Amino acid sequence: MMRIAFVGLGAMGGAMAKVLLNAGFEVSGFDPSEQALADFASAGGAPAASPAAAAAGAEALVCMVVNADQAEQALLADGAIAALADGAVAVLTLTMPPARAERLCAQIEQAGRLPMDAPVSGGVAGAAAGELTIMAAGSDAARAKAAPLLDVLGKRVFDFGSNCGSGSTAKMVHQLAAGVNLAVAAEAMGFGARAGLDPQQLYDLINSSAGQSWMLENRGARMLAREFEPAKSAVDIFVKDLGIVLDGGERLNFPLPLAACARQLFMAASGSGLGREDDSALVKLYESWASEASKDDRD
Amino acid sequence: MMRIAFVGLGAMGGAMAKVLLNAGFEVSGFDPSEQALADFASAGGAPAASPAAAAAGAEALVCMVVNADQAEQALLADGAIAALADGAVAVLTLTMPPARAERLCAQIEQAGRLPMDAPVSGGVAGAAAGELTIMAAGSDAARAKAAPLLDVLGKRVFDFGSNCGSGSTAKMVHQLAAGVNLAVAAEAMGFGARAGLDPQQLYDLINSSAGQSWMLENRGARMLAREFEPAKSAVDIFVKDLGIVLDGGERLNFPLPLAACARQLFMAASGSGLGREDDSALVKLYESWASEASKDDRD
Repeated sequence: MMRIAFVGLGAMGGAMAKVLLNAGFEVSGFDPSEQALADFASAGGAPAASPAAAAAGAEALVCMVVNADQAEQALLADGAIAALADGAVAVLTLTMPPARAERLCAQIEQAGRLPMDAPVSGGVAGAAAGELTIMAAGSDAARAKAAPLLDVLGKRVFDFGSNCGSGSTAKMVHQLAAGVNLAVAAEAMGFGARAGLDPQQLYDLINSSAGQSWMLENRGARMLAREFEPAKSAVDIFVKDLGIVLDGGERLNFPLPLAACARQLFMAASGSGLGREDDSALVKLYESWASEASKDDRD
Repeated sequence: MMRIAFVGLGAMGGAMAKVLLNAGFEVSGFDPSEQALADFASAGGAPAASPAAAAAGAEALVCMVVNADQAEQALLADGAIAALADGAVAVLTLTMPPARAERLCAQIEQAGRLPMDAPVSGGVAGAAAGELTIMAAGSDAARAKAAPLLDVLGKRVFDFGSNCGSGSTAKMVHQLAAGVNLAVAAEAMGFGARAGLDPQQLYDLINSSAGQSWMLENRGARMLAREFEPAKSAVDIFVKDLGIVLDGGERLNFPLPLAACARQLFMAASGSGLGREDDSALVKLYESWASEASKDDRD
């Protein structure tokens, strides 16, 4: 089995690294958090003192840090890419703007390694089960080298071609749909409660009809159960991801009115102190608008 | 079997009336369109020259006209309610503002008939298959009397209690989710195409992940197939239904930013000449924004 370096062992990365370990890969990992490193070690991973130390001689690297800045720091400035074996593949699974993914992949290629732009969807649960959806872009050589580990991490691998950046573009558009659908779910659940409907019944109704969405099913259940902490995926992540979406629209001179509106709502939630809570807590923003005052009071 | 009067034999009403006929009910029907009446007659229905003539002596009435004004005209001004048998049930399946449903139901009750506020979801396909989702509100007596025909028309009957208006409130919130999810689907498909992704692959990706929605699956397929005419459900219907949603929010002093934004988009599509096309044609509005100009050209 090939030896893999894993950079970024947070909630997502830690779960993915464990799946690779359980599949029999030898994995050396780095994370600045000592707790994350200790969890990784107790799952059978080899903790390293730096990104370069984790990468030394490995044939593949997976990078699951929080954003493009962290990825450039760990992979380039801190020397992980240079430390990999010749011809190794570097799989970038984080979410970042397509333009940043393109730039980072070009730098990895210049360093003589094989870049893959391969962001994922499925959350921590999908990561832990090895059932992520992977949006993969990269050369045939990179794809061939990464295939064994992508097969372990993902349930579905979508091939977005050889141009690095296309995987991140697909993830960006996916996050538009996911983020706005989540905000719609909060708007519908909040409005329904204000209008006097039973929330559980409204949830059952919409999920069995034309208003159904994965987000309403999944996050609506958390809204009903009031399960906002600990955050499975925080409000602030959609502030960031919808920011990437809007930046992508801006670069293409393409208006995205709903994504813009939804991002303002997530920002309002974050500004209300909900930024670190589960993203389903967006419904609390709507609930905060539900005083019993009516239009008649204004007239 | 009880005799049923059917008022409004358009695409939805005509399909529903046929389902009742096929189930063995005797149905007399009215519609101002001669073509609709002829289709109804050839399916075995008894065409009538007026709403009152259709209703004369019937134990149940189903009203599936376009809006509350038409319903008030046919049922009250044109005398259909007064012509029904004593204690007959009047089932209002059209989409209308909750306040209008409440008022109409109160008037039906004053006339000695049993009102049911019972809007539906499922479109013409659901209507033709007898698989509508029905959002039912009304008294126990009304419910008991309407049960045999609701069971034939619907796959699922959700009970929203005895207060007429609650069915329409549920439908209103459902339309918020459905309408905005559809607009999100158009925004994602339009943006993905502008960003160079393969539309079919993007559709497959999002529908198998967290961005999935019934609307993206259903209307996204029409966007891919370019099936915009004849309209299965027109753009203008969401202009109307999201107008009902916003009016409902206004009455409760409850802001609905996403519904407001989505309605503006449907209005822009309608104003662009797409009002009578299928609602999936909203994607054409986004496509009209996809010139190859980029931000760099503006800088």
